[in-house]
Amino acid sequence: MIRIGIMGYGNLGRGVECAIRQSPDMELAAIFTRRSPDSLHTLTEGTPVLPAEQAEKYKDSIDVMILCGGSATDLPFQTPLMAQWFNVIDSFDTHARIPEHFSNVDEAARKAGTLAMISTGWDPGLFSINRLYASAILPEGQSYTFWGKGVSQGHSDAIRRIEGVADARQYTVPVKESLDMVRSGSRPNFTTRQKHTRECYVVAKPGADTARIEREIKEMPNYFADYDTTVHFISQQELDENHRGLPHGGSVIHSGVTGWEGEHDQVIEYRLKLDSNPEFTASVIVAYARALHRMHLAGETGCKTVLDVPPALLSPLSAEQLRKELL
Amino acid sequence: MIRIGIMGYGNLGRGVECAIRQSPDMELAAIFTRRSPDSLHTLTEGTPVLPAEQAEKYKDSIDVMILCGGSATDLPFQTPLMAQWFNVIDSFDTHARIPEHFSNVDEAARKAGTLAMISTGWDPGLFSINRLYASAILPEGQSYTFWGKGVSQGHSDAIRRIEGVADARQYTVPVKESLDMVRSGSRPNFTTRQKHTRECYVVAKPGADTARIEREIKEMPNYFADYDTTVHFISQQELDENHRGLPHGGSVIHSGVTGWEGEHDQVIEYRLKLDSNPEFTASVIVAYARALHRMHLAGETGCKTVLDVPPALLSPLSAEQLRKELL
Repeated sequence: MIRIGIMGYGNLGRGVECAIRQSPDMELAAIFTRRSPDSLHTLTEGTPVLPAEQAEKYKDSIDVMILCGGSATDLPFQTPLMAQWFNVIDSFDTHARIPEHFSNVDEAARKAGTLAMISTGWDPGLFSINRLYASAILPEGQSYTFWGKGVSQGHSDAIRRIEGVADARQYTVPVKESLDMVRSGSRPNFTTRQKHTRECYVVAKPGADTARIEREIKEMPNYFADYDTTVHFISQQELDENHRGLPHGGSVIHSGVTGWEGEHDQVIEYRLKLDSNPEFTASVIVAYARALHRMHLAGETGCKTVLDVPPALLSPLSAEQLRKELL
Repeated sequence: MIRIGIMGYGNLGRGVECAIRQSPDMELAAIFTRRSPDSLHTLTEGTPVLPAEQAEKYKDSIDVMILCGGSATDLPFQTPLMAQWFNVIDSFDTHARIPEHFSNVDEAARKAGTLAMISTGWDPGLFSINRLYASAILPEGQSYTFWGKGVSQGHSDAIRRIEGVADARQYTVPVKESLDMVRSGSRPNFTTRQKHTRECYVVAKPGADTARIEREIKEMPNYFADYDTTVHFISQQELDENHRGLPHGGSVIHSGVTGWEGEHDQVIEYRLKLDSNPEFTASVIVAYARALHRMHLAGETGCKTVLDVPPALLSPLSAEQLRKELL
């Protein structure tokens, strides 16, 4: 049995707990939290819930520590810290800072003789793998990534920070006409606005100036200014009833040509349709935790990413079974 | 530069030649054929065209030999034979005989200290990888593979063997309603008939009994009897004008659940839309030939499949570039 630790018990940590339950070769060894351990309502009966600062004590009873914190403030220090004691895996998703995070984690893990894996999930993660496979197979081509329809937590948070907003949910929506163009084999250059629209459901505080809120959303740089954005003001009750879920998904489409003169179009699409973004991300991480454990047993140390992992290591089935049943 | 040899110069061999042209780190060292070398019209200027039986002489000037023969009679003896002298890669696609072929090739390659890879292409190949990734990530779920719309060479050949048939083209067509059901997140159990239909375009010889031909097609066991099959009799001219291409494609869809009680549906789809099946297959093989070469340089021997290959090895880009640009 692979003994898993969970560090951080929000939506992602709970998703990891659920995914371990689906894995016959894994057991949940402990959950670590920075909140008061007594305040957590965990799902798995009998699992110890411990303060985060006691983690080091458990270094001999956990094979892989899954870090379920956020990319902005938790993971940049937590992943290298925990790599001193554990094989660790995270879902660091700030694309621009991946090289820096990789280098910090790699150094810590090499020094300690542990194995780490960063940026596991679906983007970065499964979408990255698919960009890689497709562009290696069809080098004369172009890759497109569309996200949604799905809830963006970052954009929802940005709206909630506006004065007069009580609550908000933001959906990222791919532009259907653009998706269809790429799927059909054409290779246009899109502006940001042509690929996605943004739909906002906002609960205003009593007496707030909704016209100003709408303007502030639509003009917000980076988040909304480059997009066609629609804003709907709704009641808290409506938000709670119809917008509680965290669905997401999207497509990586690579469109390329083959033949002596590039005369044949070839289109590869990888698509996700997710009812729960955090649970799916957790399921990806747990499968890669299995691979990480096996790679460490084989003697590997330092930092890896999903790009370095042979697919066979993700499955509990043997190489013979996989060749017979899946190949 | 990775020096590639091509063994067999049909549609697949020619596709490999085109894919090498798109690969800046590869060069075509030689083409081997069992036909008269003078009869071949190859595309790459200056490439030696040699009799297949002289291959052994070139063992020190070729890094990877790509075997472009057929799975029925060529590859079962050719892949183990060539593995004595070369790193070899093939697209063996008789699913039921993969374990036996693997074992023969593995033995030959281990003895010789070479590295081999079998069953590379899109099914087996990319579709297999996607069945594996998806089922490892969503273990409580079901995988569906749909093929087409595309030309099946095997079924076209089967029709051509019927008395009175001059020529034929068979398209495998996925049943749209079934595809849509699976995409929407339901997990039905389909009969063979519910997943695909078969469309046949047949040129009858002058005076042939078309009613008998149609009956023989529709009742042919394994190939057609379990499917809803339509037969269109057309002229040779119409076949040549409208059915010369070799398009294909399909989808691997995995539909699973996550959550403590399996309360959330998650759907993963991998889809190919190919204008040229042999050229795409060739492009996949050439990317894996790059990985094979690197794995052999790293000291690996014996037989591998696509399931054993870390994605990063397929790309000519460095690990740093991949992390920065694709992850």
